[in-house]
Formats: sequence, structure tokens, C-alpha cells
Amino acid sequence: MRKGIMRAGHVQIRVLDLQEALTHYRDLLGLIEVEQDDQNRVYLKGWTEVDKFSVVLRQAEVAGMDFMGFKVLNDEVLEQREQDLLAHGYEVEHLPAGELQGCGRRIRFQAPTGHHFELYADKEQTGKWGISKINPEAWPRGLQGMKATRFDHCLLYGPNIEQTYGLFCDVLGFELAEQVVNPDNQKVAVFMTVGMKAHDVAFIDCPEANKFHHASFFLDSWEAVLRAADLISMTNTSIDIGPTRHGLTHGQTIYFFDPSGNRNEVFCGGDYHYPDHPPVTWKAEELGKAIFYHERVLNERFLSVLT
Amino acid sequence: MRKGIMRAGHVQIRVLDLQEALTHYRDLLGLIEVEQDDQNRVYLKGWTEVDKFSVVLRQAEVAGMDFMGFKVLNDEVLEQREQDLLAHGYEVEHLPAGELQGCGRRIRFQAPTGHHFELYADKEQTGKWGISKINPEAWPRGLQGMKATRFDHCLLYGPNIEQTYGLFCDVLGFELAEQVVNPDNQKVAVFMTVGMKAHDVAFIDCPEANKFHHASFFLDSWEAVLRAADLISMTNTSIDIGPTRHGLTHGQTIYFFDPSGNRNEVFCGGDYHYPDHPPVTWKAEELGKAIFYHERVLNERFLSVLT
Amino acid sequence: MRKGIMRAGHVQIRVLDLQEALTHYRDLLGLIEVEQDDQNRVYLKGWTEVDKFSVVLRQAEVAGMDFMGFKVLNDEVLEQREQDLLAHGYEVEHLPAGELQGCGRRIRFQAPTGHHFELYADKEQTGKWGISKINPEAWPRGLQGMKATRFDHCLLYGPNIEQTYGLFCDVLGFELAEQVVNPDNQKVAVFMTVGMKAHDVAFIDCPEANKFHHASFFLDSWEAVLRAADLISMTNTSIDIGPTRHGLTHGQTIYFFDPSGNRNEVFCGGDYHYPDHPPVTWKAEELGKAIFYHERVLNERFLSVLT
Amino acid sequence: MRKGIMRAGHVQIRVLDLQEALTHYRDLLGLIEVEQDDQNRVYLKGWTEVDKFSVVLRQAEVAGMDFMGFKVLNDEVLEQREQDLLAHGYEVEHLPAGELQGCGRRIRFQAPTGHHFELYADKEQTGKWGISKINPEAWPRGLQGMKATRFDHCLLYGPNIEQTYGLFCDVLGFELAEQVVNPDNQKVAVFMTVGMKAHDVAFIDCPEANKFHHASFFLDSWEAVLRAADLISMTNTSIDIGPTRHGLTHGQTIYFFDPSGNRNEVFCGGDYHYPDHPPVTWKAEELGKAIFYHERVLNERFLSVLT
Repeated sequence: MRKGIMRAGHVQIRVLDLQEALTHYRDLLGLIEVEQDDQNRVYLKGWTEVDKFSVVLRQAEVAGMDFMGFKVLNDEVLEQREQDLLAHGYEVEHLPAGELQGCGRRIRFQAPTGHHFELYADKEQTGKWGISKINPEAWPRGLQGMKATRFDHCLLYGPNIEQTYGLFCDVLGFELAEQVVNPDNQKVAVFMTVGMKAHDVAFIDCPEANKFHHASFFLDSWEAVLRAADLISMTNTSIDIGPTRHGLTHGQTIYFFDPSGNRNEVFCGGDYHYPDHPPVTWKAEELGKAIFYHERVLNERFLSVLT
Repeated sequence: MRKGIMRAGHVQIRVLDLQEALTHYRDLLGLIEVEQDDQNRVYLKGWTEVDKFSVVLRQAEVAGMDFMGFKVLNDEVLEQREQDLLAHGYEVEHLPAGELQGCGRRIRFQAPTGHHFELYADKEQTGKWGISKINPEAWPRGLQGMKATRFDHCLLYGPNIEQTYGLFCDVLGFELAEQVVNPDNQKVAVFMTVGMKAHDVAFIDCPEANKFHHASFFLDSWEAVLRAADLISMTNTSIDIGPTRHGLTHGQTIYFFDPSGNRNEVFCGGDYHYPDHPPVTWKAEELGKAIFYHERVLNERFLSVLT
Repeated sequence: MRKGIMRAGHVQIRVLDLQEALTHYRDLLGLIEVEQDDQNRVYLKGWTEVDKFSVVLRQAEVAGMDFMGFKVLNDEVLEQREQDLLAHGYEVEHLPAGELQGCGRRIRFQAPTGHHFELYADKEQTGKWGISKINPEAWPRGLQGMKATRFDHCLLYGPNIEQTYGLFCDVLGFELAEQVVNPDNQKVAVFMTVGMKAHDVAFIDCPEANKFHHASFFLDSWEAVLRAADLISMTNTSIDIGPTRHGLTHGQTIYFFDPSGNRNEVFCGGDYHYPDHPPVTWKAEELGKAIFYHERVLNERFLSVLT
Repeated sequence: MRKGIMRAGHVQIRVLDLQEALTHYRDLLGLIEVEQDDQNRVYLKGWTEVDKFSVVLRQAEVAGMDFMGFKVLNDEVLEQREQDLLAHGYEVEHLPAGELQGCGRRIRFQAPTGHHFELYADKEQTGKWGISKINPEAWPRGLQGMKATRFDHCLLYGPNIEQTYGLFCDVLGFELAEQVVNPDNQKVAVFMTVGMKAHDVAFIDCPEANKFHHASFFLDSWEAVLRAADLISMTNTSIDIGPTRHGLTHGQTIYFFDPSGNRNEVFCGGDYHYPDHPPVTWKAEELGKAIFYHERVLNERFLSVLT
């Protein structure tokens, strides 16, 4: 958090059918449905999140990610980052407070990979869902499905990885927690963090711009990953791979698809990061093991099925 | 245990290189190396097993299973089962006490699937490995690798499943715990037990006789399956599939190969069986989900890679 | 199962307030409520149990256990065991089919410890709760609380342990899986089984007759024990001890009390037994560790709080 | 990390017998023994720690904690914090680079609770133990005992909690993650963090100054806590309480003692913190549940057994 950006705070996902998507994200992933706005967008959150929402679903003709937002410490940080972005030649769009319900003003910019990102300093805090602020129980009764605890990160595909790495590192103060380098020592995958997590956002090199690989949600344990896998089968949800472990980050994971074809991940565990940690590095020659630690080969979908 | 057969007691596996195999079964699976006999066979066991050994490795030109043995209650049972086998037209071969070191006399017969099975009443009891008989600790220090607790069952491929089912059910007193039936209601897979386990031996229909699908070993927990998967990667061992869950038996599992190409399984959990339980039935139309509950499709290896 | 007795099949527990008890056993333990009979008794079961019920709650002035029942293979076994009981001097009471709804005729006798036991051959089979008989899912949606999978065993306190051991071993065909012996090598605790479980019923020596220590229910995993512990706190239920491990059986466990003061256990894991296994023996000098493996001392309640 | 302090980096613990202590911390906790210095101090670390060491054992007449050190981002931060400490009236002692082997210069000060703390900017980085920097495996082979992954935090007892809270919050930039307040809304326990962890250091109000409650080490899972508990029994180590869960932080935990009477904790899970999170608050009236979530009462040792 070298430059006042705290965390991945929200993601807006395009879905083809809002009701089907809601059933998926609320009943299967177990996100808490918060509300619907007058643009017909649905807001959700993981139960441990203090802020009002972290996932926004928008019905559209084409699936994918509209944008991802990071929460910053305060409005001063927001202004400084805007100046820095402008100074580095990035255009900045302003979204007024309330455009997302309960969220303060946001500034939006486009990364060299083609993805849109936002920064914001204020979001209504409704507290953890289902437990008291005083003497809180260990977890709330009444959680559904996978009981996802929080929105964790996104993995995005696009070109210009080195420039995007520079943007996130130099302008926004992210740190490089883990990376994949090719034989020429160029970065083909970068896992960027602003906290102790292995990543708040990650990028993989891809010729096509602005592609969405997955949004990821945190679970408590490897047993929770098993339960998630069981639920994926019981609900006849399309699975990608898992339960397995990643080599990169060493998280324990399962990938699957929402009804619109957007990939989701639920995972637990994984490496932790501090600012003085050298980045964990995998060689592209070992990309299979870096991604799927047990299988040690990529499935055909990992590099090609994107939204 | 309607006819005095207690459990799957041992399996003799053919391996192409004894030292490589020993490294695999002892250091990776974590079986306890017991001794080597004058035929150069190596004996091993899981640490919770009271009897002296359960796995015998024999170096040979071709991988596969030589035979699988079941322990019976006493010599009277052994004689009765021999009479029953003969009465049902099965030839019975006698192996003298000591032919396997520490094992009493065995009677051997061939099932209609082409596999060889043995019954025996006596085996030297050396006790659980590494813990005291009095005031035993929860587990021994010094276990290696996957820390496999016991040999559990084999899955075998061959023809004549219905007759083999009849042999195990009517002559040997096994019970049908789980099965797969085709649209004509014929059994294409039978999971046979003599105890509370979901299977002591299982058969899947296959035109080729006497094929070995896997030998399976029991682990304590889903986390132990994860550790096993990690070790498979760390040792660059050939993986088949997993961690995953079976639909049949609902066990949590991983499949991999020994250096000779014999498939192994380690697993935990799974259904329990009592004699009054109707068999759990899966339809062949759902075979993918019956075998690999999360993936819901068979991989190409499941039906074709056998030894 | 040397004499055709298959398993611990049911227990009838006296409770002081039926509605409070139902809330406890159904909503907290997660047993399935089956029905209520015209004597106002409530029937419940664990979701994996094939038979119609395993727990019967009866409102009474005094808490405790009315009786515990074992299911036998068939009516022939039932008649043989009755003859054996009579031949050994035990009085046998007959309860007609339907006295417990869905249960066939039962024969009842009193053990030297003062407890009443029953044998029965028939009980309506309603199948596992919430999953299909064909292509069954891994577990049902909609389970409550601790999601207890099955009634497993009871631990009972009373005098005449050696005679009771003789009754269960010689007359009923139970096996001694684990025991505690005093310095004179007398049995002060016996854990008796008819299957692969570490115990279907256990007895601990106590001068007072017919005392109920606990009824125990099986969980899937150590994580499920943690969730059970959390729920005990969240519901302000009286806890006894745990999560911890037993030395005897090595199961992972938690003890707590129903609203009437009857002790319950939920546990996972633990030793398995075969008929040729010598009994696992703990010395009375190590009774603390034998009972509570981590604490290594008994709490004051273990020997004194009984119903 | 509002003021450049990154994490709890080391603790120096006084032990009565260095060899016994080494056996405990290395063989039971599973810390990696790094080296011994010419003052006869032994250095250890958890295997995931990048820096050279995190635990220093010093033989002394009286057990307890000598000091606890926090690593800061760089030397500029170190100088700024020194100025701030001086400006707030704290005396600052300088320890030269190399006084702890592999550690740069440290500045030391005493908190109002009586404890000594240090800041330092440099420590030799030897990398995670047992795994490669490139394409790192999930975990190293050859770990011992509890396989503690890292030194996590200390809990300390002393007077002047409010002033100490002020020191850590205002001068050092820690955040208040969790707290216990009495009916007068005074802080009786404060859990302070500089990252996403629930605490890097915690204080509980106590009339006696400079008391050491425990040093805590992180484990991967609740199953690892069970294994730790088993090992505590197997090694006849003095246990305090657990396995259980804390109410505060919701971590899953076990407390035990080193041979000198210093308390240790190993734990997993627990709440995460961000700078915009309001502190989690427990009322002193619920202190029992706040500390031991399952038992809901303090044991007599929690408030009185200190070193």
C-alpha cells in the first residue's frame, strides 16, 4: 500500500440473464444480495466484507467485465492518484457519487491491457453480514452455497503487460508478488498486490485486449473447496478445473463458469506478501505447473476461454 | 462377512524395476517396508495394519497384478470356502504356509474376469507400526510421504461381470455395496464388500481378461489427499486425475501411476455399508459422474490405461 | 458380527421438555425429524441412515436413556439370540411390531450394568435422507446445524462390567475393540463392536446402575467438529469438553449437553476394528490421556455428570 | 502500515535451558534452526519467512521476553520513527548492526506496559527455507513437528494500556484491529496490526509490568492445529488449552508451554483487517467467550500464568 490504495473493492460483471446470474452468484457462490439499482444492476458482497457491496451484475448482450474498482484510503489519495495518472498520460473519467449506490465518486482509467479500472475513497459501510458488531460470532447462520467470504481479485488477459505492470507498480503503488517470465526474462504474467494477499489483480499476456479470465472469491479451507466442487456438480454448473492447487500463489482452487460463460474461482490458502519480499518467479517453460500445480499441464480452456 | 471372509488382506503387484517401485511405494505412498524374501519380493504394509504385510512387489517383465488375497476368520472357514469353490466348479490351487513370508497356507482360484484371488486364515501379526500396543499414541512419528494408513481395495477390469458377481456374492459371501447398471439393467460395475467399507474389491466390465485398474490405499482426510497431490507433483510422479470425488462411494480421491505404469489410488471418506443396505446404484448413462463426480466426464485413461 | 447383530440401531432418550429437546436434536445436531407417535414420542435419524429412525425422544420427569436397540440380520437371528439370552439366565421382554412406529417386534433384556437393550430384525427403510437412491449426490441440500450423519454408539456407566462384557461378547457376539484395565488387569472400561467401528456400545465401571453417559453421532471431518463447537457457542449450549481427541479410539470429538442434561457427542475419525484385531488396551493409570488425549486429565464432569 | 512499519519481525525469548528450548522450538514447533551467535543465542525462523530469523533464544535465570522487533520499510522510516519517539518523550537506545547476526542497526524503546520493542530496516534475506526461489514447490520436504510457518505476533501483559495504545497507534502507525472494552468503555485489551493480520502485537491490561503471555506461530489449517495438539501429547509437553477458537480474531488455536514456562500459541485462520475497518469490539463482560470462544470461560491460567 505504498500509494494509499487499500484493496480490490468491486468488480462489475456483464451477464446475459440477470436472474440466472443472480441465482448463480447468490445461491451457488453464496454472496449476499444487497440491492438492485434503477439501472437494473444487482449488488452483492461476501459476508465478511465491511463495505456495502463488491460485485455488481449488469445484464448485457456480451459477457465480460465492465470494470474493476480499488478502494483508496481517503479523498486526498484519490486526488493524488488522479494527478499521477494524468501526469503519466492516462485519461481519467469521473463518475459521480451515487452512480454506484452507496459508493462515493470514482475516477476511471483504462490500462494498456484494455481493461477499465476505478479508484474510489468512500463506500457505505454496512458491516459484516449476519454477525453483530459487538461480540461477533465466528460466522453467520443462514449462509448459502459455497459461503464465499469475500471478493478477492480478478485475473485479466490483454496485451502490453510490461506497460501495465509499470502503471500498477509505479503510478498506483502496487507490488509485484508473483510473476511468470519467458526465456527472454519478459513478464508474461504479473500478480500485483497492495496488501498481504498474493494478488489484488493479475494480468496474463494475450494479444486480444480487455479480456476477462476470472473473478475470484475467498473460502476458509480446503474442505470448503471440496464442498464448492460438490455444489458445482449438484447444480450442474459448468466446471473448468479443480479442486487443485496453483503453483503461482500456491492457493487451493476450483474454476467454474457462471451461466453467461464468465469464469469464477473460489480458493483458499496461498502465499502471503510483504513489501520487502522479492517476487516469486515461475519460468514460462513451467507454465503448466505454475498454473495447475498437480496436473502440470494447462487445459485447453485456460488460455482460450475468456469473456 | 456372511461367510467368514474378513477383508482384503494383500495384493501382489508386478513392477518393472524393484528399486524404483520400492522408492515409490515406501517413500511416496509412505508404506512401511517390512522385508524382502528369497524370491526377491519386497513386502510392505500401511502403518495401521495389524498384520505383517499387505503389499508384495515382484519384479517382472510386465506390470500388473499377480493376485489379491482375502483374510478369513479361521482355518475352518478356509476349508469350507474351498469346498464351496470346488462345488461351484472352480479349480483351487494350494500354496503352502511360508510361500509368502509370515503368511499361512493359501488357496488360490481364478475368477471369471481372469483375476487370481487367494484366501488365507493366518498371517503373522506384528501390530500397528510405530505405536505401542498399550496406551497407543494417535499416530507414529517418522511416517514418510503420503502416510497411507492401509491397503484398502483393488479395482479390476475383465469380462463376465455377472458371473464374477455371483462368485463373490454367493460363494464367498461378499455383499454388493454399489453398482453401475446399463439400460438393460445389467451390471457393468460391481463394488463388493465384506465389511462396512464401500468395497474390498470392485470389478468393471471389459472385454480383456485379468486387467488391473488400481490398488487403493486409505488416507485420514481430504487434507491428506491434498498433501498426496502435492507430493505427486514434487516427485514428478505421473498423475491420472484428482484431487476429486467419486460419485460411486463418494470417496475423495487421487489417481496416479507407479513407475511401472500400475495405477494407484489414495482416498479418504466415502459411503459405509451394512448387510441390510440396498446397493447404491448408478446408471451407466451417468458413468462420468459416477466415476469422477466433479468433472462428470471420464478421462480417456480411465477405461483404457490398465496393466 | 459373529452372531448376526449388525449395529447400534436406535436409542430412546428421556428429556424434560420435548420441544426444547427437538430444537436441540433437530436444529443443532441436525438430525432429521421423522415423525411423532401417539405416545408423543418424537423420532429422528441421521441423514445417511437407511432405516426410518435411530433416535426416539420421550418426555419424562427424569432425563436419561430408556433403552438402546441393536438391529440383527433377520428374524432367525432374533430367535436364536432370545434362546441364548434365556439360556444364560436373562429375562426377555417382548415388544410387538409397531410399538415403535415402523419397527418390527423387539426383544428386550437388562444388562448387569442395569441398562435395557433391545434386539430387532425389521425396521422400515426410508433410505438416506435428501438424496436419490439412483445416482445419489454426495450429500443433501438443506441439512441443519451440525449435520450429524448417523447415530453411532452410546457410552453407559454401571456396575458389573466383567459380566456385561461376557454378555455382549459370549451371548451377543460383540467383540472387544478397546478397553481400560486396572493394575489388577480387571476391565474398567470396555468398547464393544459388531462391525468395523471402534464401538457400537461402551461401558465404564461405576457403582450406580443404569447411568447414561452419552449418545454419540458421527461427523464427516475434524472441520465439522469445529463447526459443531462454533454452533454450541452460538446457541449458548452447555459444553462439556472439546474439540479434542480421545486416546481410546483416537476419535476427534466434542461433548456437550442437551437441554435436559443428557450428554451428547459428535465425533469423526477413529480406529477401525476387525475380528482378528487384539483389543487396544489402555492402563487405568493413564485414564486421563485415554479419555482426553490432549488434556491428559479428566475433567470433574466426566466421571460424575450422568443421567 | 501508515508509518512504514511492515510486520512483527522477531522476538527474543529467555529460556532456562538452551538445549531443552531448542528441542522444543525446533523439533516440536518445527522452526528452522539457523545459527548460534557468540553470545550463545540460538536463531530460528518459520519456513515461509524470507528473512534470516524471527526467534532468538537466550539462556537466562528467568524466563520471559527480552524484546520484540518490528521491521520497517527502509532506513528513512527508521530515522523518522526515532524522531517521533523522541518527540513523544520516549528514550531510544541504539543497537549496532550485527548485534543480532544478519540484522541491521536497531533502535529500542520501552512501552508504557514495560516491554521493550525494537525497529530495524535491514535483515539478511535467506529466502523461504527448503524451496527454490524459482518455480517454488508448495512446501518443503523435511519439516519437523508442527511445521510452524512463521512467527506471527506476541500477546503481552502490562499496565497503561491506553498510553501504549496511543504509542502504537499515533507514533508507530499501528491500527486497532480488535479490542476488549470494560463497562466504562476503557480498553482492557488491544490487538494492533500493521498489515492484514488481526494482530502483530496485542496487549492486555495487568498491574504487573513487562509480562509475557505468549509468542504465536501460524499454521496452515485446523488439521495442522490437531496435529500440533497430538504432538503436544506425544512429547508430554505442558498444554494450556485447546484446540479451540478465539472469539477475538476468531483464530483456531492451541496454547502450550515451552520447557521454561513461556507460553506458545500455534493457530490458523482468523479475521483479516484493512485500515478502513472499524475495530472489532468485545465487551469485558464477555471476556471468557472473547478469549476462548467454545469454553466461554477463562481458565485460571490465562490471566495469571505469565513469564
